[in-house]
Amino acid sequence: MLQSLMRILLSNDDGINAPGIRAINKGLQKLGEVLVIAPDREQSAVGHAITIADPLRVKKVVENGDFVGYSVDGTPADCVKIGVKAIMESRPDIVVSGINHGGNFANNIIYSGTVSGATEGTLLGIPSIALSMDSFLSNDFSSAVSHAVEIVQKVVEKGLPDGTLLNVNFPDPAIDVKGIKICRQSDCKFNVTFEKRHDPRGLDYYWQGGDMDHSDPDSETDVHALKKGFITITPIRYDLTDYKFLDDLKSWSF
Amino acid sequence: MLQSLMRILLSNDDGINAPGIRAINKGLQKLGEVLVIAPDREQSAVGHAITIADPLRVKKVVENGDFVGYSVDGTPADCVKIGVKAIMESRPDIVVSGINHGGNFANNIIYSGTVSGATEGTLLGIPSIALSMDSFLSNDFSSAVSHAVEIVQKVVEKGLPDGTLLNVNFPDPAIDVKGIKICRQSDCKFNVTFEKRHDPRGLDYYWQGGDMDHSDPDSETDVHALKKGFITITPIRYDLTDYKFLDDLKSWSF
Repeated sequence: MLQSLMRILLSNDDGINAPGIRAINKGLQKLGEVLVIAPDREQSAVGHAITIADPLRVKKVVENGDFVGYSVDGTPADCVKIGVKAIMESRPDIVVSGINHGGNFANNIIYSGTVSGATEGTLLGIPSIALSMDSFLSNDFSSAVSHAVEIVQKVVEKGLPDGTLLNVNFPDPAIDVKGIKICRQSDCKFNVTFEKRHDPRGLDYYWQGGDMDHSDPDSETDVHALKKGFITITPIRYDLTDYKFLDDLKSWSF
Repeated sequence: MLQSLMRILLSNDDGINAPGIRAINKGLQKLGEVLVIAPDREQSAVGHAITIADPLRVKKVVENGDFVGYSVDGTPADCVKIGVKAIMESRPDIVVSGINHGGNFANNIIYSGTVSGATEGTLLGIPSIALSMDSFLSNDFSSAVSHAVEIVQKVVEKGLPDGTLLNVNFPDPAIDVKGIKICRQSDCKFNVTFEKRHDPRGLDYYWQGGDMDHSDPDSETDVHALKKGFITITPIRYDLTDYKFLDDLKSWSF
């Protein structure tokens, strides 16, 4: 009997036309059958949003006569859900989200659409991984893709615990890859700033911006290892319960 | 010297005109100074989204000559950030998000804008709580408000661990309150379904829906206690690292 082909659901938050998803799509085809179901436009910083007040549209995307995948006018979580529940005929072996343009590490992962796509796969009981590359500008995904393919293969072989997904970051391609490091999520915070401006009618508006505060001194965290040139893998879960504080709280005598 | 007034930043995801935020606003004024900074429209199921591709507008809301608060054309996380960083002159003692119309429990909290508003307060280093009432229809927030005021007072007195917030749910007002229970997040999943329809032009679209699968048998979880009439308090955190699996993963020999 032939070994059945690996079935991969591929999504992202940069949209179906982004170079990162195109690059990993080619790479993953070596492993098996890849179905791309991705947002029709950029969905960065959507967090774990889903679309419930509006209907979702799904479009078949064909380029030069070749089928590329399906685009959805929703979030990454919507794409993974509708992919598994309404588009694919059988469940995929793995959900891959990315490769995102820009790293997803430290506390910032709660804003990440890339991570959210993979989280949705995990919620559906499918091993899932989020892939991001720590550069907003470079389109050189070659090193990231070759490592990602190995990681995806390993995850499908080994499986993941229920409720756990992997958040993977690849260093800026300008840095030599030093290896792979398993890391915890850094507690570095994003120092948000708001720049107030006036529009031509004299009304105020604000731009949200800021930068990462790298004050968490622990060098074993995702952001530190990544900046030093390591590929970082952080196992994360969606059970947000603070078990450590749970018992203390019981003594508050409500 | 007079004891300084408690300063409360109040937001939500149902929008500044929602009955839940209006009700808790009145209740919290017994404790101190409340500043409402909330979305200008409903933002349910936005998860932990933030607005970075568009500017944010802030509007002063005045009704019958009385100042109500500020409305922001963004998400709950945007509101809390811009409130603390650009609107308030000094940091609040607590961030309160709610009272949401509809419970926020089990794995569904990752989609919750209400929880996201409180999470943002925690990320900013401010004790924060999310408040939700387990009914989409009832506007009787009286019992929830009186309990919420007590809980807010206790949180300000006692403080919370760094990186931990409280997710509080009040039962449907049709049920008698049995007491307060400290609970972990249930692993009950939402069984998502997609209903395919055709528009007048004959094109497909999908409505996302579904229901909660109450198969987690542990009666000590948020959803079980809530449905039995308990007010549930779940301490949650934004460090998503799966510490238990972290060491196993190191043995995968990448």
